[in-house]
Amino acid sequence: MTEDRVYNFSAGPSILPEPVLQRARAELMNCRGSGMSVMEMSHRSPVFTEIFTETKEKFRSILRIPETHEILFLQGGATLQFAAIPMNLMEGKTADYAVTGNFSNKAAKEAEKYGTVHIACSTADTGHNRIPQQEELDLSADAKYFYYCANNTIYGTEWQYVPETAAPLVCDMSSDILSRPVDVSRYGLIYAGAQKNMAPAGLTVVIIDKVLAGRELPYTPQIMSYETMIKHDSLLNTPPCWCIYMLSLVLDWLKEQGGVEGMEQLKKARAKRLYDCLEESRLFRLHAEPGSRSDMNVTFRTGNAETDAEFIRFAADRGLTNLKGHKIAGGMRASIYNAMPMEGVEALVDTIKEFEQKHV
Amino acid sequence: MTEDRVYNFSAGPSILPEPVLQRARAELMNCRGSGMSVMEMSHRSPVFTEIFTETKEKFRSILRIPETHEILFLQGGATLQFAAIPMNLMEGKTADYAVTGNFSNKAAKEAEKYGTVHIACSTADTGHNRIPQQEELDLSADAKYFYYCANNTIYGTEWQYVPETAAPLVCDMSSDILSRPVDVSRYGLIYAGAQKNMAPAGLTVVIIDKVLAGRELPYTPQIMSYETMIKHDSLLNTPPCWCIYMLSLVLDWLKEQGGVEGMEQLKKARAKRLYDCLEESRLFRLHAEPGSRSDMNVTFRTGNAETDAEFIRFAADRGLTNLKGHKIAGGMRASIYNAMPMEGVEALVDTIKEFEQKHV
Repeated sequence: MTEDRVYNFSAGPSILPEPVLQRARAELMNCRGSGMSVMEMSHRSPVFTEIFTETKEKFRSILRIPETHEILFLQGGATLQFAAIPMNLMEGKTADYAVTGNFSNKAAKEAEKYGTVHIACSTADTGHNRIPQQEELDLSADAKYFYYCANNTIYGTEWQYVPETAAPLVCDMSSDILSRPVDVSRYGLIYAGAQKNMAPAGLTVVIIDKVLAGRELPYTPQIMSYETMIKHDSLLNTPPCWCIYMLSLVLDWLKEQGGVEGMEQLKKARAKRLYDCLEESRLFRLHAEPGSRSDMNVTFRTGNAETDAEFIRFAADRGLTNLKGHKIAGGMRASIYNAMPMEGVEALVDTIKEFEQKHV
Repeated sequence: MTEDRVYNFSAGPSILPEPVLQRARAELMNCRGSGMSVMEMSHRSPVFTEIFTETKEKFRSILRIPETHEILFLQGGATLQFAAIPMNLMEGKTADYAVTGNFSNKAAKEAEKYGTVHIACSTADTGHNRIPQQEELDLSADAKYFYYCANNTIYGTEWQYVPETAAPLVCDMSSDILSRPVDVSRYGLIYAGAQKNMAPAGLTVVIIDKVLAGRELPYTPQIMSYETMIKHDSLLNTPPCWCIYMLSLVLDWLKEQGGVEGMEQLKKARAKRLYDCLEESRLFRLHAEPGSRSDMNVTFRTGNAETDAEFIRFAADRGLTNLKGHKIAGGMRASIYNAMPMEGVEALVDTIKEFEQKHV
């Protein structure tokens, strides 16, 4: 880290690659010789059209999205998708929801407004510390889709397999998108809020199999209709231009790092280093069960709230910030997204060991 | 203008004050000593909480918003509000819409999904070149609200008075907010997309009389419920943090310029200079009628599409960009929002005169 910056373990909005921020700064007053900032450009101007088109192409190429699927750049975050998905895909009927954490639970609750929600599984009874196996999934015969959240930021669990279902898969990948290759053809819809692995808050990327569009309930707002947004190539109204531009810079950086394969190697290495250290620890214990652990959010605790708080301060004094766990889970959480360099993880491991020596 | 920048007459997203962009650039990698960019901060972190709270306070103070009204920082632009307003306020009954341009027309069309839309007036028959007078408004006895768009960017017209109605006033001020003092207490709801007079695209500010909240239709998405957003102080989910930060910088700049009174003086001066020049012109004619003309968007044309195109190129060669009118109106449009300095208008007047000398 340079320029007096910290190692930022925030769960979202989160760390961005330093070279990306430097490039954004360099171009801030005058982008691509336009004489203006991206923040000042009409979304229909030639320069922004170029940025928009390139971003979509880069995204399609990096995640190898087949032509059957459209890429949408939307607003409103996951919370808007919680309603948009059932409004567009449920047809007032039934959908299956896997509840493995806070956000899938919220999605299921919101969907109840638009049809029948069938809970295909819930891990609430064990504090969402694991991901159910395929055979545990109770699937409805007539589900319009099966909904799950690939990575649970609060509890630090991540699906290690793609569920097998007859209904189209709908997946919230907000916190692990672009961290690994994905066989997009297996999904009906993938969405992700940008603010964890991709860009600043304010952009949601939706990847939708075009055959699923056009089934929305009659009262669906235009801005929430996938069919309308596909028809307008996301430009029904002014999109979050700055976030799209930032995503384009992140995608350039990501390509230089070896694309999603490079990111997967790095994420495995980061997570292994941290989990190994915590497995060996005599002070800290991990929240998530082996086989369900997230490579993106590592949740751990001492079992003593005061010691946890002391550790969080201890780390912050060393320039390692935002290690406090979510209030509903407690303890610590280290979010190690794409932009977290290995040095940040090494610094955290050193800090954990230093703290432990003083306390055991 | 410095740093090889242009005079940007774009209708939206639009010019931002140069000192604001410079400050954003200076703080981009490390904001307020946090060691991180605003784009990387958790929306619940102490530094961002400070930014959020300050922005709201500055906004309330500058526009003198009474405590009866809440300020919300939302996503989705005017297009989301087109649905949110009837979903929240119409109760499935009737609302009056004044159609004076493209955006009020779109709002009325979207509202038809949620109740009975009564067109209180339409200026479509004269190409939306004027604003109806009070006595022309055909008001329903039982309207849940009266909806209008204060400034019509495409046609260059602006309401010069506040309509008198029994129903609460709902007003789209996207293109003239913060350009003049407003008696907020007269309104039930004011909203504005940020990307014209306030901040980059991706933020919508809603000012709502709290007594109007809590009447939404049962299928209203959480993210579109004003009551829910009021309860969560706009932080139901991750807000568009960067745009809120940019708004805070714009508000600081605006205060230094004398607040909304300073902006009103400047807008009157800018508009007068340009309208006087065009009134005297033997080549160009104005689209909007006197008494209805916008201080923010000046629409003019030669009557010959080729000459219009030539003028647009002529101006662009001189660093005056985005003067092309909207495709549905044609001709030229100079958007002279808060951030447009008087020198930009002077440069445009000089260019108009120079072009005219060659063509008359």
